[in-house]
Amino acid sequence: MLRFDVTTNDWVIFAPSRSLRPHDFQQRPKPPLADGTRPCPFCPGNEHLTPPEVFAVREGSAANAPGWKVRAMPNKYPALRIEEDYHRGESGRLFRYMGGCGAHEVIVDSPAHHLSLAQQPVEQVKALLGALQQRYIDLMRDTRFQTIIIFKNHGPQAGTSLTHPHCQLIATSVVPHMLRHKLAVAAQYFDTTGECVYRALMEEELAARERIVTANEHFVALIPYAAGVPFETWILPRRRQSSFRWLDPSLLHPLAEILKNVLGQLFVALGDPDFNLTIDTVPRGEEQGEYFLWHIQIHPRLTQPAGFELGSGMSINPVLPEEAAALLRETQTNSLS
Amino acid sequence: MLRFDVTTNDWVIFAPSRSLRPHDFQQRPKPPLADGTRPCPFCPGNEHLTPPEVFAVREGSAANAPGWKVRAMPNKYPALRIEEDYHRGESGRLFRYMGGCGAHEVIVDSPAHHLSLAQQPVEQVKALLGALQQRYIDLMRDTRFQTIIIFKNHGPQAGTSLTHPHCQLIATSVVPHMLRHKLAVAAQYFDTTGECVYRALMEEELAARERIVTANEHFVALIPYAAGVPFETWILPRRRQSSFRWLDPSLLHPLAEILKNVLGQLFVALGDPDFNLTIDTVPRGEEQGEYFLWHIQIHPRLTQPAGFELGSGMSINPVLPEEAAALLRETQTNSLS
Repeated sequence: MLRFDVTTNDWVIFAPSRSLRPHDFQQRPKPPLADGTRPCPFCPGNEHLTPPEVFAVREGSAANAPGWKVRAMPNKYPALRIEEDYHRGESGRLFRYMGGCGAHEVIVDSPAHHLSLAQQPVEQVKALLGALQQRYIDLMRDTRFQTIIIFKNHGPQAGTSLTHPHCQLIATSVVPHMLRHKLAVAAQYFDTTGECVYRALMEEELAARERIVTANEHFVALIPYAAGVPFETWILPRRRQSSFRWLDPSLLHPLAEILKNVLGQLFVALGDPDFNLTIDTVPRGEEQGEYFLWHIQIHPRLTQPAGFELGSGMSINPVLPEEAAALLRETQTNSLS
Repeated sequence: MLRFDVTTNDWVIFAPSRSLRPHDFQQRPKPPLADGTRPCPFCPGNEHLTPPEVFAVREGSAANAPGWKVRAMPNKYPALRIEEDYHRGESGRLFRYMGGCGAHEVIVDSPAHHLSLAQQPVEQVKALLGALQQRYIDLMRDTRFQTIIIFKNHGPQAGTSLTHPHCQLIATSVVPHMLRHKLAVAAQYFDTTGECVYRALMEEELAARERIVTANEHFVALIPYAAGVPFETWILPRRRQSSFRWLDPSLLHPLAEILKNVLGQLFVALGDPDFNLTIDTVPRGEEQGEYFLWHIQIHPRLTQPAGFELGSGMSINPVLPEEAAALLRETQTNSLS
């Protein structure tokens, strides 16, 4: 069976018979990362091993000293830098380039080296989410930046090389094609129906029930009908809101609750799987639009995209979203907190 | 620095300082795959372990018996099946689906269990390429199929679970969005300039020289200016040709030569890296177009796409294409054949 993703206009191939049942994706314990022999730059007391912090949640202690709850600083090995220019040029007719202007920051989840987000108290998750939003708002003051991608890489299959849990953000002075495409699809849906496609999808999923993972008064977590990878989970706000920047601070707590809950269900059901988390939000200039709804996407890295996926851009998903959602709903996370 | 990919209209971030030099990507010897303890379904004598063959290059021997040079059969665990229907339907307003109609075949490279394509004689590579083209042409007779993706997964990081070298193809009754997008970009370039963007790119690269890997009378191998991953290599025909199906059989030999050469350079320079190979070609209905040029793309799997890539669709490439191409040009492959 194929299913159509109304947010990308692409088809996803579901091939559940090719694979095992959802609970067969349970991960084996992972070997420790290679960084275990070096002092951890993200642990309290080692603040001098990172570039100076740009933001921290701390009560009373001095900058770049221990005593923080969340800490943000430039990435020591940045993909883009604030100091680079952003002029564009061409060499030849087809070789167009621009300077590597941007920002690349690390936001350390907490002082705890071995606690993943699913194991943290809600207050800590809330502090992290608040810090991510603060960094977003602050960096967007720099009008050279068009787009900010906030993400987390958890585990080696998800591209982490450091054990200590952390998030990152990259601000770019271009808008990625994929984001423009999603915006165009959502704008067309809005122009045709008068509705936001993400909100319409959330309402259809709430009515269908079977792919809902969990929900509270302000947020809904679900595995979308046309999820590209096994256990791909989205967290969407119930309130109409194009950008993560507009999230009211009073809603950081329920967002932290549902995020901790979902990550805990994935942790227990799949055995601490590697995953990427991203915050999908609009670029500069689209922040007043009614057609997009910012949301969190969690992509467990249980399967390896191969030649078909690279050659077609389509996904083959061996697990039906409703079966994955049922498994997560049944999962008790008491053991974690 | 960022570079613009004129075939996708997206930017690629180059961050060479984040990483080591090109030769530091040399791979360590890999542990054998888990299939080593089971009889190999792709080895001569084990033909009964696969579905019956649909095509083979053999001299005199009976179907599904040893004596073949290349052998093609349906995938035992298919993502799509010829027997499924392709009717489309909707449940609710936003849940659109279609039947899993398609084809999923395996094409075994050769009888040799441990020889990768780089180590095969040119005649064997030619026989494989001819078989791929025959399967393409044969499956396109089924008018339900819109697109055929031909690909190879080499090594566990590239998604292989079987050691014996093989290719696959998947025929779908939809056109992937990514392919439509590439066609739209190429058509717009053609409408603006009167030229095929892939041919224009190849000519610019031939003039610039520094990203050319190797070339012969009929084909050019290069690492494109805006390559998304380290050592991503394309092989393009010099002749104007939208579809792989139109490749003249007389050119299978020079294509085999350049493919063996490039795979050999990657094998020696990087230590048998895991890679995906895809053949980019047009879908049904576009085969007479002048704006696209079919080509082979080789994607070594040396880096792991992480949260930024998933969230933005953009790539971060730690190796400059001209440095990678220089390393491949210097690489002697005599040891392989």
